[in-house]
Amino acid sequence: MINAGIIGATGYAGAELVRILLTHPQVTIAAIGSVSFEGKALSDVYGSFLGICDLVCENNEEVINKSDVIFACVPHGLSQEIAVKCVSLGKKFIDLGADFRLDSEEDYKEWYGLDFTCPELHKRAVYGLPELFFNQIENTDIIGNPGCYPTSIGLGLFPAIENGLVKTDSIIIDSKSGATGAGRGLAQNTHFADCNEAFAPYKVASHRHTPEIEQTLSRAAGKQVTVTFVPHLLPINRGIISTMYVKLRDGVSKEQVRNAYEAKYNKSHFVRVLKDGDIANLRNVKYTNLCDISLHFDDRTGTLIVVSAIDNMVKGAAGQAVQNMNIIFGLEEQTGLEFVPPAF
Amino acid sequence: MINAGIIGATGYAGAELVRILLTHPQVTIAAIGSVSFEGKALSDVYGSFLGICDLVCENNEEVINKSDVIFACVPHGLSQEIAVKCVSLGKKFIDLGADFRLDSEEDYKEWYGLDFTCPELHKRAVYGLPELFFNQIENTDIIGNPGCYPTSIGLGLFPAIENGLVKTDSIIIDSKSGATGAGRGLAQNTHFADCNEAFAPYKVASHRHTPEIEQTLSRAAGKQVTVTFVPHLLPINRGIISTMYVKLRDGVSKEQVRNAYEAKYNKSHFVRVLKDGDIANLRNVKYTNLCDISLHFDDRTGTLIVVSAIDNMVKGAAGQAVQNMNIIFGLEEQTGLEFVPPAF
Amino acid sequence: MINAGIIGATGYAGAELVRILLTHPQVTIAAIGSVSFEGKALSDVYGSFLGICDLVCENNEEVINKSDVIFACVPHGLSQEIAVKCVSLGKKFIDLGADFRLDSEEDYKEWYGLDFTCPELHKRAVYGLPELFFNQIENTDIIGNPGCYPTSIGLGLFPAIENGLVKTDSIIIDSKSGATGAGRGLAQNTHFADCNEAFAPYKVASHRHTPEIEQTLSRAAGKQVTVTFVPHLLPINRGIISTMYVKLRDGVSKEQVRNAYEAKYNKSHFVRVLKDGDIANLRNVKYTNLCDISLHFDDRTGTLIVVSAIDNMVKGAAGQAVQNMNIIFGLEEQTGLEFVPPAF
Amino acid sequence: MINAGIIGATGYAGAELVRILLTHPQVTIAAIGSVSFEGKALSDVYGSFLGICDLVCENNEEVINKSDVIFACVPHGLSQEIAVKCVSLGKKFIDLGADFRLDSEEDYKEWYGLDFTCPELHKRAVYGLPELFFNQIENTDIIGNPGCYPTSIGLGLFPAIENGLVKTDSIIIDSKSGATGAGRGLAQNTHFADCNEAFAPYKVASHRHTPEIEQTLSRAAGKQVTVTFVPHLLPINRGIISTMYVKLRDGVSKEQVRNAYEAKYNKSHFVRVLKDGDIANLRNVKYTNLCDISLHFDDRTGTLIVVSAIDNMVKGAAGQAVQNMNIIFGLEEQTGLEFVPPAF
Repeated sequence: MINAGIIGATGYAGAELVRILLTHPQVTIAAIGSVSFEGKALSDVYGSFLGICDLVCENNEEVINKSDVIFACVPHGLSQEIAVKCVSLGKKFIDLGADFRLDSEEDYKEWYGLDFTCPELHKRAVYGLPELFFNQIENTDIIGNPGCYPTSIGLGLFPAIENGLVKTDSIIIDSKSGATGAGRGLAQNTHFADCNEAFAPYKVASHRHTPEIEQTLSRAAGKQVTVTFVPHLLPINRGIISTMYVKLRDGVSKEQVRNAYEAKYNKSHFVRVLKDGDIANLRNVKYTNLCDISLHFDDRTGTLIVVSAIDNMVKGAAGQAVQNMNIIFGLEEQTGLEFVPPAF
Repeated sequence: MINAGIIGATGYAGAELVRILLTHPQVTIAAIGSVSFEGKALSDVYGSFLGICDLVCENNEEVINKSDVIFACVPHGLSQEIAVKCVSLGKKFIDLGADFRLDSEEDYKEWYGLDFTCPELHKRAVYGLPELFFNQIENTDIIGNPGCYPTSIGLGLFPAIENGLVKTDSIIIDSKSGATGAGRGLAQNTHFADCNEAFAPYKVASHRHTPEIEQTLSRAAGKQVTVTFVPHLLPINRGIISTMYVKLRDGVSKEQVRNAYEAKYNKSHFVRVLKDGDIANLRNVKYTNLCDISLHFDDRTGTLIVVSAIDNMVKGAAGQAVQNMNIIFGLEEQTGLEFVPPAF
Repeated sequence: MINAGIIGATGYAGAELVRILLTHPQVTIAAIGSVSFEGKALSDVYGSFLGICDLVCENNEEVINKSDVIFACVPHGLSQEIAVKCVSLGKKFIDLGADFRLDSEEDYKEWYGLDFTCPELHKRAVYGLPELFFNQIENTDIIGNPGCYPTSIGLGLFPAIENGLVKTDSIIIDSKSGATGAGRGLAQNTHFADCNEAFAPYKVASHRHTPEIEQTLSRAAGKQVTVTFVPHLLPINRGIISTMYVKLRDGVSKEQVRNAYEAKYNKSHFVRVLKDGDIANLRNVKYTNLCDISLHFDDRTGTLIVVSAIDNMVKGAAGQAVQNMNIIFGLEEQTGLEFVPPAF
Repeated sequence: MINAGIIGATGYAGAELVRILLTHPQVTIAAIGSVSFEGKALSDVYGSFLGICDLVCENNEEVINKSDVIFACVPHGLSQEIAVKCVSLGKKFIDLGADFRLDSEEDYKEWYGLDFTCPELHKRAVYGLPELFFNQIENTDIIGNPGCYPTSIGLGLFPAIENGLVKTDSIIIDSKSGATGAGRGLAQNTHFADCNEAFAPYKVASHRHTPEIEQTLSRAAGKQVTVTFVPHLLPINRGIISTMYVKLRDGVSKEQVRNAYEAKYNKSHFVRVLKDGDIANLRNVKYTNLCDISLHFDDRTGTLIVVSAIDNMVKGAAGQAVQNMNIIFGLEEQTGLEFVPPAF
């Protein structure tokens, strides 16, 4: 059994990790940590866990000591120090925050306002999007677990770009996320009466996930790709839909596009490429690690429209983190993650 | 492995049964049936099942033949004939409809307008509320699986009544159910724009679950109990909260009440009696077979207020049906049902 | 034109008052006040007001000086001092908080933990539920504007009690309110992902509106009435449904009950007694000063079930405050309040 | 007073028209029509109208005869015959359906599958988007009232295109609409449990509003414009957000763009151009005839992002129809339409 520890267990991503790991056949939750709730039981924070996980929150030190693998769910800037400790003790470290996602320190500085404090760890760290970068994940001990939007977009556009089927100079990405994406912290725009029956974009063309999205797409293109990315806040709990608009290269057929996607995700446990005429809906992937992708063509304008749907808390956070853990520890990647999505 | 068949698999209860049985370690879904969708794959009706359960709907005959246990999710009046066939072939039959819930043919006639067409089967049939009637369930081959409201109310009031702690002549039950309780069929009151941001009672003091509720409470009391029951429609997908008001007998203390509930559900896998000060919320039991119960006392009026929360589709339908199946087949009752409720 | 001032204009009740008064034909909003947002425009707090009400928040002093009538939307305990100032300057004062609702200082002390600091004003203050206490309102200059739950319950039960049709020793009230009832202040239970797809009671049999409810019902009964009152939080923005259970006196007929309600509200501009078979739904009164009441009889238990529906922010707060203002200033009570409820 | 008649009054657009016209100071609702509910009171279909509008539905003939202006809320293909009758009797005709929106019979045939049956009326008919085509509306007696999406998009893009500030060959429009847009008719995708907590696009790049959108933008450009348009279904009742992506022409500054929008809508009663940094949210325009527009610039890709927000039932349907009526009858366009949007 793998001893897993969760730092920041009382935030939304942390609580979701606990939910998933509790039924993982190869994992024991060794310890959970929280700064705000140290000494308090998780089930006192979330009544859902009552009698199921009554573990008491400890400090980071204790969590690290008791665990083989440490998941960190903390604000950016705080993970690097934790990573250093973990790695020095020979533990695996999976960061659900942003500190180890970007290769470029410049980008990190520009978008997050901070420096790389442990450059050698950043070099070792791997960006954990398994459907795209499986081989690198197998051999690392530090994972930068992808952001929710970048996961939905990376999976949605990689095959088209990688195969040179689309132009990369005019990519438009319009994403919509449920309110859990904003976390457990109270804020006016996620106050119920302000958020319910409301809808709007936010951080228009200025969201911090932009460089991370571009990093993945640039790897696919083999050159720097710049995108226009606009996220929106949906008045629902869970799920992300990304609607992505890309111009087809001249002469590219629908079959070529479809073949590229099916070839890429053929053996994937989690990505489902929908058949012609079907449309990805976040309803069909909720509470699972699945990513549904549908392909649409606007013949009048030569545009490929890719729609991808994930659960932002699972494939977009905790589930993918567990998928990465599975790969690092040599388990089947789907171990403990084969949830059946509820139909409603 | 148990071969399970589901008749009426494309309704909400049927689809939920499929979801649960797919991960049950001792069950194979042998066949699914549907009148409206015969020949069509379940995943064409619910995109959520794509690649996970692409079984094609068959007719009832085929479902019965292929299965050791048959779950029927059909409108009342249609189950009796199916039951006869199942039992004559030595199969187990679990009815999620209303046909086998009531002992009294008179009540069935009054509330459902139909006769018992197979009285001997009705005598054999057991009301499948395991926390209250476990012993009878073990030895039957026909289960009348309880209604959603009667489950939440039976569990909520049985200990107080059984132990003579409350008066039984003035019980008021105010229940609130999510919209899945109305099923998949289209109706004006569950049309999105009519149901959303709306709230009201329905079938005030005239809901068909009333005699079923009274049957369970009468068993607890050892005499006929009559209740006032008013259900309401909540603009959410899942969950039932029942708020129950009963007058305490003179001299009964809070400790006596709490002790009765804790003694009753002490060893239960699914009923959680919340500690003093906590309040049952349907959020904490969603997507699980759990029932949360909280106890409150209005000292000013000598009233015990019991609040119970279940997921109407799981403990109130498909989950409880699987729990009954487990018991009949001699498995641990919680097999395949130990879901961790998501915190959000 | 009446110069109206609003203290606490940036809270939910205050903002709703502004919305209503802006289209009132006899009112000019002279000034709005806010402690937290002094110097800021209301339209910077609520984008909805942009270009429609760009008034800048001032301090209380200024609001009082510029106004003929002052509405106070502040936490309990803060209104008494404001009332003293207003009355000493010959202004009318309408308090949307709890300070002037209760006749009994003892009750106020018990439920709110505070003393009456200006007993003579409390004697002059009138409880402003116009359909029940119109005559007293006409001649006062201090109004205690009723709470949202007490409004829905007072209107719902007064006729039955006043006419001696029901027993008053076992009244059960189960109320459900939208999330605006909790105000604009951030809290975990109104954080979107915690409140959405959730439902539970709160402050079970211990809500501060209890003595206010009892005060109104006691006036109807001519003797002290004690009730069991349990409020619930609905995952919607607006509206309250109160479901009220009372035992009919022996020999009382349905016609007597219906006649009592129709006689009482016959000439009311805002209370609609629904016809037999119809059920009050908060959908039908949203954004209006209406109160819908439906009457139901449980013959099996001799119980009268009254369902009332209001918009908690209008008839339950700001609209009723304007109705009181109209009466005090000798206008038709419905002036500026004849909103047509949207059908969806 | 203008005698107004509404054909198709029991659909969502019709009911919203009734709501608006009831408080219009210059209008009497002379008659309402409905095929499905003839002989039934509107308040029996929508309880919200009880005691406020108890008019009984009549047949079309009667509605036309009693009215000076007829609003038709019927499926496409049915309005042309009604228009012929109205015009022959010297009445004004405002069509909320699609029959009179398109200049091109070819487009109508391609997207709606029908012919123009009265070509001379189509020539007289005016596309009723007052902020853009005021002068033509003043002098007509047949209005093709714009679709909801085309309204939000036409207002959002016209100034930028008209002034030659953006390229017109790569316009991407990602729109999101509340569920009332689908009307009162029952359908699986607007069944509560299917629509709630779900989100997806529909009719991807194939929605019938596409040629109407292009018609307006082509008028702005002075040449044929083709767009990629993808609508999405939001799990809320009302409102549309359109997020529009257009490439800026070389050398065009943010100031030029902002100036173009402010100049265009400077004197508009209904369009609010938000200040720099603010973002249009459908919450701020609900229940009103307002359109909020915010302007955003993605400097990294030279993209102008325009976000527009309307209430799909008011500015996107019934409110705009009344605005057109006002103009035709020589009233101030805002008469009866100056609703204050509720803050929540």
